[in-house]
Amino acid sequence: MGFNSNINTILGSSDYLEFLRGKEASLLLSLSTTKTLDIKGITQAGVPGLIHLTPTLDSEFVCSGEVRSLENLAETPKGVPTPALITRAVHVLKPFKNIELLDLGMSQKPELDFFKIHEFDLKPSEAIHKGAQINAMDVFQKGVEFGKSYECKDDYIILGESVPAGTTTAYATTLAIGYNCDGKFSSSFKDVPNSIKNQTIQEALDNIKDGDDLFEKIGKVADNMLIFNAGFVLGNSSTNTKLILAGGTQMAAVLLLANAIVKYMGGELDSSNLALCTTKWLNEDEHSNIKGLLELLDFPINAYSANFDFEKSEHPALKLYDKGEAKEGVGAGGALCYGLINGLNGEQIIKEVENFLG
Amino acid sequence: MGFNSNINTILGSSDYLEFLRGKEASLLLSLSTTKTLDIKGITQAGVPGLIHLTPTLDSEFVCSGEVRSLENLAETPKGVPTPALITRAVHVLKPFKNIELLDLGMSQKPELDFFKIHEFDLKPSEAIHKGAQINAMDVFQKGVEFGKSYECKDDYIILGESVPAGTTTAYATTLAIGYNCDGKFSSSFKDVPNSIKNQTIQEALDNIKDGDDLFEKIGKVADNMLIFNAGFVLGNSSTNTKLILAGGTQMAAVLLLANAIVKYMGGELDSSNLALCTTKWLNEDEHSNIKGLLELLDFPINAYSANFDFEKSEHPALKLYDKGEAKEGVGAGGALCYGLINGLNGEQIIKEVENFLG
Repeated sequence: MGFNSNINTILGSSDYLEFLRGKEASLLLSLSTTKTLDIKGITQAGVPGLIHLTPTLDSEFVCSGEVRSLENLAETPKGVPTPALITRAVHVLKPFKNIELLDLGMSQKPELDFFKIHEFDLKPSEAIHKGAQINAMDVFQKGVEFGKSYECKDDYIILGESVPAGTTTAYATTLAIGYNCDGKFSSSFKDVPNSIKNQTIQEALDNIKDGDDLFEKIGKVADNMLIFNAGFVLGNSSTNTKLILAGGTQMAAVLLLANAIVKYMGGELDSSNLALCTTKWLNEDEHSNIKGLLELLDFPINAYSANFDFEKSEHPALKLYDKGEAKEGVGAGGALCYGLINGLNGEQIIKEVENFLG
Repeated sequence: MGFNSNINTILGSSDYLEFLRGKEASLLLSLSTTKTLDIKGITQAGVPGLIHLTPTLDSEFVCSGEVRSLENLAETPKGVPTPALITRAVHVLKPFKNIELLDLGMSQKPELDFFKIHEFDLKPSEAIHKGAQINAMDVFQKGVEFGKSYECKDDYIILGESVPAGTTTAYATTLAIGYNCDGKFSSSFKDVPNSIKNQTIQEALDNIKDGDDLFEKIGKVADNMLIFNAGFVLGNSSTNTKLILAGGTQMAAVLLLANAIVKYMGGELDSSNLALCTTKWLNEDEHSNIKGLLELLDFPINAYSANFDFEKSEHPALKLYDKGEAKEGVGAGGALCYGLINGLNGEQIIKEVENFLG
């Protein structure tokens, strides 16, 4: 018999998160830009014309409470504010012990002092319908190396991401490496723009030639975050550090890519220190199926969603989350789980997010 | 664009404190007595006739929640309670990881078990109008040595002080070493007793002879805390540990003294790990100018004030803070900033302070 939990277990054992209750986390944010975002209508994650700045602005806001590289915080055309607000709200109420940024090819560096920004000499990747032109083996190896060598000074790592148009590249990648994921992929749209998105993905897949190996394939259709993070997951699995992937279908794609690479290389992945945490909106999304995606993995995975929504908020922009807009990103699901296993309740978080919106 | 912050940046970048959000602090308290406090009317920081006990009582209360060396908590004649209440309130709600005391010449040792009290073989200094009779080089070197060798087991150090009549010695010291600081110095009085204070400072400065070197000068007009902490700042700057000076004009005087000593010795101070945190009352004080004092420094400094006051309190003794009494001391400004970057809000702190007063 369980009690009225504020965490929902999607897969695996609730004890992974229970074990982490009260422990200290480092938040790492994987930040990258894919020129896929320039396709009209493909994403609403950001300010029209300046969507390439979204990872920059999101990371500035989570770290400092300010957006510095633009006047106003990234809002979608319908007025849904970035999930970075949720991550920042948790950080204000129950701070992460440490935040570090991974520059996986941003168009502009965040304006931050003191915060560690790891550089990997990566540029924004090309639009996938033109072939992403990523040196996938290089990016993957950088991820593996970082995952192996990164010394977490806290008890565990929460890894989030900000990649506008990232659900499109995640979907394309998962299809390209051979998973059957019809109807399992979400985007940040409520009214999923299937035509644009599907057309882009189809054009991306058409770039793959017979005989392309796994890394050649993903170099054409993925983004730097997906490939680097798959490497990170594998590199980290050789350490004793617990790693939470904070995200929805994009992080599921990271896991599927890691799974495919391990099979391709004839190895095995020890997933005992690994979990995924996402939002309720993503987990209950009608247009995607996070559980179904994770069940495609060959290794067991612990996965959770935070029982948090804006039902008790009066703010119209936040109510849009409950209507299926935005749903996840910038580590929001992982941040919510972190807050909820460290004494916060939903009302505190709602109030803090509302504070930001004024 | 910033949001509704509970921290005000006086100088430098808000990122210094943002980087420390969620990290753990050791609170060190520099405690010393100058016989300057015996001058009638020079300070109200304590119980008349027993003001020399204030550092002892303040440190007992911060560490244990009790005043042990006297029946009642130090109150000024008008009934303003010591800012140690604020520091203790934060410590109760969001504890410092560690508190250690620096005995820089107290008249009586605090009655505390288990807490580390560092001894430096220093006695209370003499009243400055008679010449303070401090071996300034000795005290300075002890500070440097301690700053270099102190191993902080937490992420950073918050350094507070309790020195009754300390604004008088700070003002005299800053003038003696050649800074123009007219109108920039505060005292713990609302109705600044300029005649007594200025007369004392003038008499102190008159003791300085042509040909006195920097250390001879400050040995006549300063107090042990100022000189030791200036050494601490310099010693610490050779380590990687971030150091927050928690205080107002006295801590500004510590920085000006460190600045003067560095120039005197022909060196440079790396201030990248250094900051000052004070209260809103001190920052908004009409009788002093903390920003102006810090702008006299030759190195850049990050400085903040906590957006905290007793507006929402009904307690008459606490309302006196908002009227300009007391303002700062015993690390209150640093403690408030520490609490506010670690999930506390002002209402919680007010409630806890009110609890102490019954």
